[in-house]
Amino acid sequence: MMICIINGPNLNLLGKRQPEIYGSRTFEDVLDELKATFPATEIEYFQSNCEGAIIDKIHALGYDTPSCEGIVINPGAYAHYSYAIADAISSIQLPVVEVHISNIHARDEFRHKSVTAPSCKAMLCGFGMKGYELALRFFNAH
Amino acid sequence: MMICIINGPNLNLLGKRQPEIYGSRTFEDVLDELKATFPATEIEYFQSNCEGAIIDKIHALGYDTPSCEGIVINPGAYAHYSYAIADAISSIQLPVVEVHISNIHARDEFRHKSVTAPSCKAMLCGFGMKGYELALRFFNAH
Amino acid sequence: MMICIINGPNLNLLGKRQPEIYGSRTFEDVLDELKATFPATEIEYFQSNCEGAIIDKIHALGYDTPSCEGIVINPGAYAHYSYAIADAISSIQLPVVEVHISNIHARDEFRHKSVTAPSCKAMLCGFGMKGYELALRFFNAH
Amino acid sequence: MMICIINGPNLNLLGKRQPEIYGSRTFEDVLDELKATFPATEIEYFQSNCEGAIIDKIHALGYDTPSCEGIVINPGAYAHYSYAIADAISSIQLPVVEVHISNIHARDEFRHKSVTAPSCKAMLCGFGMKGYELALRFFNAH
Amino acid sequence: MMICIINGPNLNLLGKRQPEIYGSRTFEDVLDELKATFPATEIEYFQSNCEGAIIDKIHALGYDTPSCEGIVINPGAYAHYSYAIADAISSIQLPVVEVHISNIHARDEFRHKSVTAPSCKAMLCGFGMKGYELALRFFNAH
Amino acid sequence: MMICIINGPNLNLLGKRQPEIYGSRTFEDVLDELKATFPATEIEYFQSNCEGAIIDKIHALGYDTPSCEGIVINPGAYAHYSYAIADAISSIQLPVVEVHISNIHARDEFRHKSVTAPSCKAMLCGFGMKGYELALRFFNAH
Amino acid sequence: MMICIINGPNLNLLGKRQPEIYGSRTFEDVLDELKATFPATEIEYFQSNCEGAIIDKIHALGYDTPSCEGIVINPGAYAHYSYAIADAISSIQLPVVEVHISNIHARDEFRHKSVTAPSCKAMLCGFGMKGYELALRFFNAH
Amino acid sequence: MMICIINGPNLNLLGKRQPEIYGSRTFEDVLDELKATFPATEIEYFQSNCEGAIIDKIHALGYDTPSCEGIVINPGAYAHYSYAIADAISSIQLPVVEVHISNIHARDEFRHKSVTAPSCKAMLCGFGMKGYELALRFFNAH
Amino acid sequence: MMICIINGPNLNLLGKRQPEIYGSRTFEDVLDELKATFPATEIEYFQSNCEGAIIDKIHALGYDTPSCEGIVINPGAYAHYSYAIADAISSIQLPVVEVHISNIHARDEFRHKSVTAPSCKAMLCGFGMKGYELALRFFNAH
Amino acid sequence: MMICIINGPNLNLLGKRQPEIYGSRTFEDVLDELKATFPATEIEYFQSNCEGAIIDKIHALGYDTPSCEGIVINPGAYAHYSYAIADAISSIQLPVVEVHISNIHARDEFRHKSVTAPSCKAMLCGFGMKGYELALRFFNAH
Amino acid sequence: MMICIINGPNLNLLGKRQPEIYGSRTFEDVLDELKATFPATEIEYFQSNCEGAIIDKIHALGYDTPSCEGIVINPGAYAHYSYAIADAISSIQLPVVEVHISNIHARDEFRHKSVTAPSCKAMLCGFGMKGYELALRFFNAH
Amino acid sequence: MMICIINGPNLNLLGKRQPEIYGSRTFEDVLDELKATFPATEIEYFQSNCEGAIIDKIHALGYDTPSCEGIVINPGAYAHYSYAIADAISSIQLPVVEVHISNIHARDEFRHKSVTAPSCKAMLCGFGMKGYELALRFFNAH
Repeated sequence: MMICIINGPNLNLLGKRQPEIYGSRTFEDVLDELKATFPATEIEYFQSNCEGAIIDKIHALGYDTPSCEGIVINPGAYAHYSYAIADAISSIQLPVVEVHISNIHARDEFRHKSVTAPSCKAMLCGFGMKGYELALRFFNAH
Repeated sequence: MMICIINGPNLNLLGKRQPEIYGSRTFEDVLDELKATFPATEIEYFQSNCEGAIIDKIHALGYDTPSCEGIVINPGAYAHYSYAIADAISSIQLPVVEVHISNIHARDEFRHKSVTAPSCKAMLCGFGMKGYELALRFFNAH
Repeated sequence: MMICIINGPNLNLLGKRQPEIYGSRTFEDVLDELKATFPATEIEYFQSNCEGAIIDKIHALGYDTPSCEGIVINPGAYAHYSYAIADAISSIQLPVVEVHISNIHARDEFRHKSVTAPSCKAMLCGFGMKGYELALRFFNAH
Repeated sequence: MMICIINGPNLNLLGKRQPEIYGSRTFEDVLDELKATFPATEIEYFQSNCEGAIIDKIHALGYDTPSCEGIVINPGAYAHYSYAIADAISSIQLPVVEVHISNIHARDEFRHKSVTAPSCKAMLCGFGMKGYELALRFFNAH
Repeated sequence: MMICIINGPNLNLLGKRQPEIYGSRTFEDVLDELKATFPATEIEYFQSNCEGAIIDKIHALGYDTPSCEGIVINPGAYAHYSYAIADAISSIQLPVVEVHISNIHARDEFRHKSVTAPSCKAMLCGFGMKGYELALRFFNAH
Repeated sequence: MMICIINGPNLNLLGKRQPEIYGSRTFEDVLDELKATFPATEIEYFQSNCEGAIIDKIHALGYDTPSCEGIVINPGAYAHYSYAIADAISSIQLPVVEVHISNIHARDEFRHKSVTAPSCKAMLCGFGMKGYELALRFFNAH
Repeated sequence: MMICIINGPNLNLLGKRQPEIYGSRTFEDVLDELKATFPATEIEYFQSNCEGAIIDKIHALGYDTPSCEGIVINPGAYAHYSYAIADAISSIQLPVVEVHISNIHARDEFRHKSVTAPSCKAMLCGFGMKGYELALRFFNAH
Repeated sequence: MMICIINGPNLNLLGKRQPEIYGSRTFEDVLDELKATFPATEIEYFQSNCEGAIIDKIHALGYDTPSCEGIVINPGAYAHYSYAIADAISSIQLPVVEVHISNIHARDEFRHKSVTAPSCKAMLCGFGMKGYELALRFFNAH
Repeated sequence: MMICIINGPNLNLLGKRQPEIYGSRTFEDVLDELKATFPATEIEYFQSNCEGAIIDKIHALGYDTPSCEGIVINPGAYAHYSYAIADAISSIQLPVVEVHISNIHARDEFRHKSVTAPSCKAMLCGFGMKGYELALRFFNAH
Repeated sequence: MMICIINGPNLNLLGKRQPEIYGSRTFEDVLDELKATFPATEIEYFQSNCEGAIIDKIHALGYDTPSCEGIVINPGAYAHYSYAIADAISSIQLPVVEVHISNIHARDEFRHKSVTAPSCKAMLCGFGMKGYELALRFFNAH
Repeated sequence: MMICIINGPNLNLLGKRQPEIYGSRTFEDVLDELKATFPATEIEYFQSNCEGAIIDKIHALGYDTPSCEGIVINPGAYAHYSYAIADAISSIQLPVVEVHISNIHARDEFRHKSVTAPSCKAMLCGFGMKGYELALRFFNAH
Repeated sequence: MMICIINGPNLNLLGKRQPEIYGSRTFEDVLDELKATFPATEIEYFQSNCEGAIIDKIHALGYDTPSCEGIVINPGAYAHYSYAIADAISSIQLPVVEVHISNIHARDEFRHKSVTAPSCKAMLCGFGMKGYELALRFFNAH
């Protein structure tokens, strides 16, 4: 079983940027933990600040990566306006879970609405880095 | 460790109502599974169709139940207008996780906004009955 | 054939409250007339000011009252915000007719929209107490 | 007693158009039934796709037809924007009942609001062809 | 002269909940002071988290309690959506004064609008616990 | 000099309909007075409840009536939604003055906006029947 | 008979400012013409850029100037937000006619709505300087 | 194969009205060209400024003209509010293509939305008179 | 202790203007009563129709009047749009109580929102002239 | 004559993604057909999921490709929010035609508005793959 | 070269009011610095809390002060609603630069929109007191 | 001291595109001038049409370029929707000044709001190419 985690814009700064909101661990630290927690799952990781590259990756997973069984995506701010990413998610058959580290409903008004969430199977937010683990667990228990 | 699961209006019908959306198991079945999955956690369960009773329960857990370490709440449709439940959640110190069985962002427009979510620590939706397990796991791993 | 009439908040005051809008007969007077008009129909009557109690009643009729063939509901002001009652109506198989005594489209702006009406089979307003009779007649002629 | 039924745009297609929404009987069939049901009432019938012709008819009934005691109107889509028809209804003394065959609250967003309903005495929708009978019954029992 | 004070949802927590906003005295302390300040006034007190129970109480005061000369109500968060409570207030003859402890205009956007205030005679907010005294003084000086 | 007065829907009822708003004189009475006041001006009069007929008339005046030097139009309720009449006014070279008998800004919300006014040279409202005279005087003094 | 013309902000620049919209005559020129046209009417003239001074003037005319029989006001941009001037107009018994030189419905969106117009008896716009004459004529013929 | 072109309000003025937007050829000139371009297609032409007449024509084509295989409609300004024409288009089985001569998205705000387009199979705008040819070509190549 | 009462636009007309809404006593009468009721408090009074003068007064009280311990302000219609007065209130340290004579929530839509209230400590409305006394009492009991 | 077709995000999936909406042919198949249909036209093809790359291409065509005489662009979901692409289209002199395969007005609300269309010369939607041919034909007949 | 700096409401409090937002220097201190920085420029300074006085000053500069070559204006809160000041700016030929000390886009929602900025040549905000210097430099380098 | 200027989409066309709005000099010309004006400042320049590349650059400057002391960014149209760029700006410690060449408040409605401005320290617009110099001066004088 292979699951790909896609992180969107500014999430390469995890551990550096606003640690009071996003925590102080880098995503690489988190990734090591996740791999340890789910030894039977191959976890691929992809991060890009570029909307187009994220779409390309979703296509590649959905059409050219038979081993992939699901996607965990944190679209970052693209969640709030990228109908193109939403369409990419809708265009594939794989189940996709949307993750936000912070509780987007408790922050700026514009973060309350996710335009990508309706294309996803499920969505979670506010669990901190733990959210990625919960999303992976969903795929394992599915 | 004790966690209380609160289910709001119409969720007593789980297993009976619109099984294509909510699945065909009753919540009692789910509860048995959850207890088996988390043997070290005492899981209390409360369901009411009455907004006031849900508020009373939140107060009771937050002020009069020292053993309680967290709440998993599925406010049902109250999520979309009950500022009174939102205030009740804000008024206690316990962490609260909001759960919706279906992906509320992919249903009617009015279901896209949760007024209770900003008062919660975290929120998840679209994981089906599995969502309750993920919420409990968050408390166990916290 | 059994039909249940459910009256929501403040409708217990019929005959007392704002008679220029709602008329001066109590609902008990109306009920006697309805029973006389539809002798072959068993008419149950339920009134509550509590949203939760109304939901409970809808469930009871929909799942535990095999003789019930339909519901006539006047949700009062709950019509304008109770998505929980709307969900309760959607969750049962029985046909439900929504009744408003006054023409809600000719009163305050907030009364123009009924959030419960989309869950009902049909809706009527502005016929005064006569509206209940028309709703019952619909079930008899259906 | 004379009552006039006015049907607005596209209702000449009843029995032909989208029978899954509007039923398969023509309005002429319905009219025969109504006449049989209310033998003591003279029922006039008028249909037009033209807003101006509907206004003309309302004026003629209100000012030049002393025998007319009420109007049953299904304004079709004009209900959603014809303030001119609304003004025509307001300009006469006769009671007017608005009828919609389908439950307009359960269809497209733009159909939720009727601008003609505030000028009417009462309104009903979702009862299918039966709605016309209920409206006529209201006049008979009035 | 009898005046009833009705406190809505979460106000049972006064003295416990968010003392930086609502102060640290319980309402029972406040009540003792009010009784001392207005010895000639009988002050009844009612609190409930349940919308329906608040409506029932308003009815009871308005129709079945001849000694009651006025109501002081703090509807809590129900102020922002309970058209049913607004209708209950409109349905009685007694003067009603709405009280909010904090300045609702200086808090969350959704708290700026009170749907119950238009049914009341008067409204005050931001005076802390002192607001109840001012409301009572209004009735005494009326 | 010829000026045409066009009256839109329901204005044939002037003198009959809601005299408290529109006065009790028929437009024919008004027309006689206008002709006496402006003996040097040929005044044509046209009234229709039909949007299409009003458009046809505007075209006829603008393209086929060389003697016509201006139009006074009271579009009635069409003022609030007929972009087709607005386009017809824009499509001709003649100056057009929009007249409303009542002060549309002091009535229903939907009457506050005129979609035809931007296509007109000028607009006046609230002068009662006198408004037609003022509009004609504008053309005479122009 | 005395009528006062009140011109609001920036109208002291008439003849200087944007002549393509407002014409090139000063208001003093216009005033001379108006006095010649209405020799039997005493025409007072007041201009101020200050909202408060305009309110003071309205009060003075309404309460302390018995000879005044009407007001012609061009509130300039204050028309679009000065509820204080609107209240001043409502607070007096004199009839008030609002005048705008340009057609406000054909300019910027914010100019389409006048908040002072609902307090006035009538309103006209788009007639250029001629609008003042039409307003005065209304008072003479009234 | 027969295709009917329906032109709505003000389009009878093509060649006369605002040639900078709509071009200077009359529609009759265009029609001759279209007939020459599509010799194998019978092209019927209908123009009316009357909403009701357009609805009647759509019905006639859809139910009483077996030879008709498609409709090209330019609803003019009716595109922006005529839900009645939209319903007429929905009520027939024939494919309908909506044409606008100018690019409606680049003009007034109110022209950006077409309420008739959702009922059509396809829509094009901004191609000038050439748009009719493209629409016809679609039917020929279909 | 000195408290200044500031009355905004049109409040100089108290006792003259719309007595059905604002009562028939002048503010001078009210002031005499207030002085009698609070003999230990020096009550200054200021009224202006000019936004700028009200701002100047607030500054003078806040920075140049050490004896002043609070302000009672009725901003009249400025409450609904004067962000400049709101800023003036925010710019001083003195507690400010906003008073409206009528219940602004039960009048025109535009009166429901006060932009100055968020800058004030507290706000009351609907108590008639009695509102000023309640506001003063708050300062005395503070 | 050279025309470039630019396809935006997710359109590389044509033939794979949601064939019920977009058809089952790949764009390469379509391109072959187009080249056969327009032998005298050089047709360049460019597809990218990246907003920036699309802008770069538009610039290259507009400033560095003298042979290019027009652009056919299907911006995919970028049509609904990419003001940057809209600006790129506005910044060149070449005529641009916007194409959407499906009827965007008959799908999700957010798809009804194209922010790129106002910068284009013309727009068409709902013609399926045939839409590209119609756009090319426009350039050939232009 | 003479440039006039106009400061609007509450800016007389600079150095006193909310120093955490506006800094602790008075504007007189700033002015001395500006004069030292731009010795070749005559800098006039005007401050008023009164909208009308600001309009008067703009007129005086634009029409009666030939030496004036530009205006730097900080309209304070008037920026958010004073269409009258916006019109005054539009009515003169002088270039006007709008300055806000704080970043208005990062504060309250109502401060995000400036209605005066569209009438100005340029606008800057968030540079603190330094903003005035930048504006002056623009005029010097212009 | 090093300052980086980042120009967003379509700004590579400066000097070519719409010179009536953006001027006819290329940015390279401007850059030479800026370097001459600020000889003590190292000015780096970066332009991209790609949102992701701009985010990458902001990160590189904020985390990997110790010499960089500030950023001047003209986000072009991305200013109006790129919450991802806004987040990137918020994620670094460097002060950022947003520049727009034209006065965005005086152009299309959608350009009035900048979603990136709240993340910046300051913003200026409408100064033409001169705006870049003013922004740099701010950093030099800071």
